[in-house]
Amino acid sequence: MEIYRPTLVLNKEKCLKNIKKMSDKAKRHNLAFRPHFKTHQSRIVGDWLRDFGVEKITVSSARMAEYFSLDGWKDITIAFPVNLREIKLINDLSVKTRINLLISDSDVIEPLNKLLSGITDVYLEVDTGYNRTGVKVNHMEKSRELIRNSNKLLFQGFITHTGQTYHAASPEEILDDHRHALEDLKKLQEMFPEDLNISIGDTPACSLADDFGVASEIRPGNFIFFDWMQYKLGACSIEEIAVCAVCPVVATYPSRNEVVVYGGAIHLSKDSMVLPDGNTSYGALVDWSDKGWGNVWKDSYVSNLSQEHGIIKTTSSRVKQLKPGDLVGILPVHSCLTAESMRGYLSFDGNDIDHMARFY
Amino acid sequence: MEIYRPTLVLNKEKCLKNIKKMSDKAKRHNLAFRPHFKTHQSRIVGDWLRDFGVEKITVSSARMAEYFSLDGWKDITIAFPVNLREIKLINDLSVKTRINLLISDSDVIEPLNKLLSGITDVYLEVDTGYNRTGVKVNHMEKSRELIRNSNKLLFQGFITHTGQTYHAASPEEILDDHRHALEDLKKLQEMFPEDLNISIGDTPACSLADDFGVASEIRPGNFIFFDWMQYKLGACSIEEIAVCAVCPVVATYPSRNEVVVYGGAIHLSKDSMVLPDGNTSYGALVDWSDKGWGNVWKDSYVSNLSQEHGIIKTTSSRVKQLKPGDLVGILPVHSCLTAESMRGYLSFDGNDIDHMARFY
Repeated sequence: MEIYRPTLVLNKEKCLKNIKKMSDKAKRHNLAFRPHFKTHQSRIVGDWLRDFGVEKITVSSARMAEYFSLDGWKDITIAFPVNLREIKLINDLSVKTRINLLISDSDVIEPLNKLLSGITDVYLEVDTGYNRTGVKVNHMEKSRELIRNSNKLLFQGFITHTGQTYHAASPEEILDDHRHALEDLKKLQEMFPEDLNISIGDTPACSLADDFGVASEIRPGNFIFFDWMQYKLGACSIEEIAVCAVCPVVATYPSRNEVVVYGGAIHLSKDSMVLPDGNTSYGALVDWSDKGWGNVWKDSYVSNLSQEHGIIKTTSSRVKQLKPGDLVGILPVHSCLTAESMRGYLSFDGNDIDHMARFY
Repeated sequence: MEIYRPTLVLNKEKCLKNIKKMSDKAKRHNLAFRPHFKTHQSRIVGDWLRDFGVEKITVSSARMAEYFSLDGWKDITIAFPVNLREIKLINDLSVKTRINLLISDSDVIEPLNKLLSGITDVYLEVDTGYNRTGVKVNHMEKSRELIRNSNKLLFQGFITHTGQTYHAASPEEILDDHRHALEDLKKLQEMFPEDLNISIGDTPACSLADDFGVASEIRPGNFIFFDWMQYKLGACSIEEIAVCAVCPVVATYPSRNEVVVYGGAIHLSKDSMVLPDGNTSYGALVDWSDKGWGNVWKDSYVSNLSQEHGIIKTTSSRVKQLKPGDLVGILPVHSCLTAESMRGYLSFDGNDIDHMARFY
């Protein structure tokens, strides 16, 4: 494996294990498994999911739907509030692919109904406490009625993303958030006792929970790679993290116990997390060799990022062992954004795995 | 101008004014003007600089040097600590293009000398207080001596990036940082009284300072677009900001005075700044119409970003005036990272302007 510059190395075996685990869980709970492709955004990784029988997918933009539709995916939920400005693309896509749109604000229903060229499946997004997008349970009547009275919107059910789990302080808090979301969804099922799909999404709860209440579908995405944030949340083990950013050392500064690598904000993304000591981390360090990555350096972290520079805070003994030209392994804080920034992966067998960002 | 999704709109007239102002300043102070291309990363914007007589440029990676070399640029400083792992690319480039490499750690000199295939220009990077990369003044003797004793490294001078100006609390602090850097550079000139180039870089100091001491060259990059951070630092006026991220509204939430736009971390980047009230901002809102952007909304800011979602905190009157399908203008916090994330620009006359990120 030849590495010249910041490279996101992907461990396929770990990915396959992560897929199998989530796929098995969905089957065990009799849930439809509609994985979110915004994490990997790769046709090749998509094929790995196909091998587990996945036929329905989730994406986060109309263009991502177009991209995967061109790769033969025929049932795609665009899990983002429908963007009226992309109506032409949406109408074109609807002819070739089953597209599910999200209604996250009742004001969008009337203009959408006018702009759609044919009958289209829609989900109502429920805000179950994340307070980002979606309609609150007690305001749902109006939206449901507007969809009922439209002539092109075919109501399919309710969808939610319990993103507040990403801010939980413990696995117990994640499960609490999840339970509250399920209670909201149960209320909706009672308010609208039709035969509806009920779709939930976030990786932390899908990984940890063993009760999915009235949900009929799960849409996790990050689970395929996981990352340092998911590990810290308790949603995965370190061994399950399937991507590692490998970066060349370009300078070492023993006087301040810092190592500078080629690998900055445009590679890792500026997503960060606060460490127990109050410092901000942009990534966790791990042993790296040609055989892959290994133990975490508990005494080190990525402390700062410029456009191309990554600054690693480490110990005096580690800084002395590193020299320009060496490689270090960094487990990303948030693998979705790191993958988007890197725009591709290197598999252990040396194959380039592309990312949608290369084509748009 | 048709806008379907998050789009970085570029005002060419403002760019040209910004270029002229900096180019005139360099001439007035008898400084070589070697603009940094890492901000725009565009061949088209590069041509605008050519029209002002620019022949020497700065880039932040060997691949960026390759990209602009292919576009005919013949004198390129790679203002990033030389990455030994890219030696083949560097050696190939050196044949076609004058490449200046940066030595930021004395440990790199010996292996670099072994790996270079021919004589190559190098600069010693001086750490003038940013504490990111470079050698401190009082350790410079050793590095200078190692370069002198090498057979392929041709010493050209000293280079510094006074990046601490980005953390200054006032224009006075920026000028203080700049003065301290110039004092360090003066010491170096006295220590090494050869006829050396002395290159300084950051946009805040290059914009505000009127004394460049012993410097013989400036390498600002951000000045071509500026951004909200530069405005807050006092390095530009609001009117000089030349890029604006235009994003479609996808949902409004009057109950919490928030508007959600299509425009997230993968478009704006997660670079942020702290507002006077302690809140974090990922961008400033401005009036937007087909004629361009106008007044700043002093009562609003981008308060959070997910992968594709941007959350705007605003007032009850503004939230009522917006509806899904409308467009809002966002002045980025850091235009270099927003440009990298957007991978291209839309000019006012409707032309697509490409970005290097589309090709690598």
